[in-house]
Amino acid sequence: MSYAPGEIDELTRFAERLADLARNETLSYFRAGGAVRDKKGPVFDPVTDADREAERAIRDAIVKTYPRSGVLGEEYGETPGEGPWRWVVDPVDGTRAFISGAATWTTLIALEFEGRPVIGLIDQPYLNERWIAAQGRTAFRRGGGTADCKTSGVEDLAKARLSTTEAAAFARLSQKTLVQRFSMDAYAYGLLALGALDLVVEAGLSRHDYAALGPVVEGAGGVITNWRGAPLGTDARGETLAAATPALHAAAMAVLNA
Amino acid sequence: MSYAPGEIDELTRFAERLADLARNETLSYFRAGGAVRDKKGPVFDPVTDADREAERAIRDAIVKTYPRSGVLGEEYGETPGEGPWRWVVDPVDGTRAFISGAATWTTLIALEFEGRPVIGLIDQPYLNERWIAAQGRTAFRRGGGTADCKTSGVEDLAKARLSTTEAAAFARLSQKTLVQRFSMDAYAYGLLALGALDLVVEAGLSRHDYAALGPVVEGAGGVITNWRGAPLGTDARGETLAAATPALHAAAMAVLNA
Repeated sequence: MSYAPGEIDELTRFAERLADLARNETLSYFRAGGAVRDKKGPVFDPVTDADREAERAIRDAIVKTYPRSGVLGEEYGETPGEGPWRWVVDPVDGTRAFISGAATWTTLIALEFEGRPVIGLIDQPYLNERWIAAQGRTAFRRGGGTADCKTSGVEDLAKARLSTTEAAAFARLSQKTLVQRFSMDAYAYGLLALGALDLVVEAGLSRHDYAALGPVVEGAGGVITNWRGAPLGTDARGETLAAATPALHAAAMAVLNA
Repeated sequence: MSYAPGEIDELTRFAERLADLARNETLSYFRAGGAVRDKKGPVFDPVTDADREAERAIRDAIVKTYPRSGVLGEEYGETPGEGPWRWVVDPVDGTRAFISGAATWTTLIALEFEGRPVIGLIDQPYLNERWIAAQGRTAFRRGGGTADCKTSGVEDLAKARLSTTEAAAFARLSQKTLVQRFSMDAYAYGLLALGALDLVVEAGLSRHDYAALGPVVEGAGGVITNWRGAPLGTDARGETLAAATPALHAAAMAVLNA
């Protein structure tokens, strides 16, 4: 099965509309002192009303416009569709940042065709920043402006600006890289696409966390796999290894697997 | 010696003008792929052109308008003045965030009267956010709007949202607090003043890092001391302990000194 480029253009515009709908919900709760609940028992996993209402707004719009598409969302799970398309949604990635007032949380929207992400969108509503990737190209919008994204040319680990949320990756890579950032979640992949960061390494990600990242990173000329160089989602640990260049990717992979 | 409130009003407006001047410099380098230099040898301490040019712009304006004031800046050290006033300036606090494209770096400007900070300003140019504190009041400006700052009412450590850049503080407090953030630098004190964070704990700060923080935190109703409850700058470790309420401050201090 295949699809027409025009179909992707239309779906890309729709993905942006979904992000706009989510913005209305998330922005009304950000820094507004909303309640924080504990979702899954002993491990603290905060869920705000913003999460739930943003995902509900997105799901409602999908059902209305593309009723045959499947939807997988962080908050309300899987709604199977009929056919090759599935939307994968994380309404607020980085809930810890969100409830701490830090504008590094994002809304993630991906569209899969037969299980492979063909559209990826990362949105930061408070900063009015958006990365939208499709057909091998990643655009960055801020306010009224749009620019094509291009990763940095950094090939050398010693010159790499690293972001990670993973303790083992930090332990192995922090002494070998130029500068290290912690706790940025999916926003870090946007900075990688802009050429502001060079390397992002994580683990423990679910499909709704990583589905949008592949198109964004690859559309900017970067490389993204798991820690062994296999496609995202092919290991049990939810690993990601994203790099500005193939050489940097290989260097980081060697250290992670040493 | 003393000063008139009208004098502080005028100096507060001037502090904002200094922040505006710094913005012109810092924003032209942020995410622009500028060079990163190593300042002090073995320990990596990045200094960008943004740092140097922003401080130069600030110093030039001070010399021109208040030639008798002293200036202490991160990049160009101390210029002694004649009289009770001294400006204390950190043009880019959070250079690691700056060179990684994360908008949590800030420009810090304080005015001391006989060694005590009476004006504190925290500016985040990319987000167009500014905290300006004087005469027991902290205002938050974003875009065109201004609001008075008020810390949260959180008194219980188990409900506190913590930010720290200090490993020992993280080790002692992370299991006892609700949520933890790392690597936000002075921006975290702004979030504390907004009521978005409840507790900020650091060490290793110099006077240019902390001079602006006292007025901002106290003007929003918070408490800020070192880890022993003494004024900032009275220990050799450059400690800060800032809390939304006196009760939370006391609870955190008990854990840090246990």
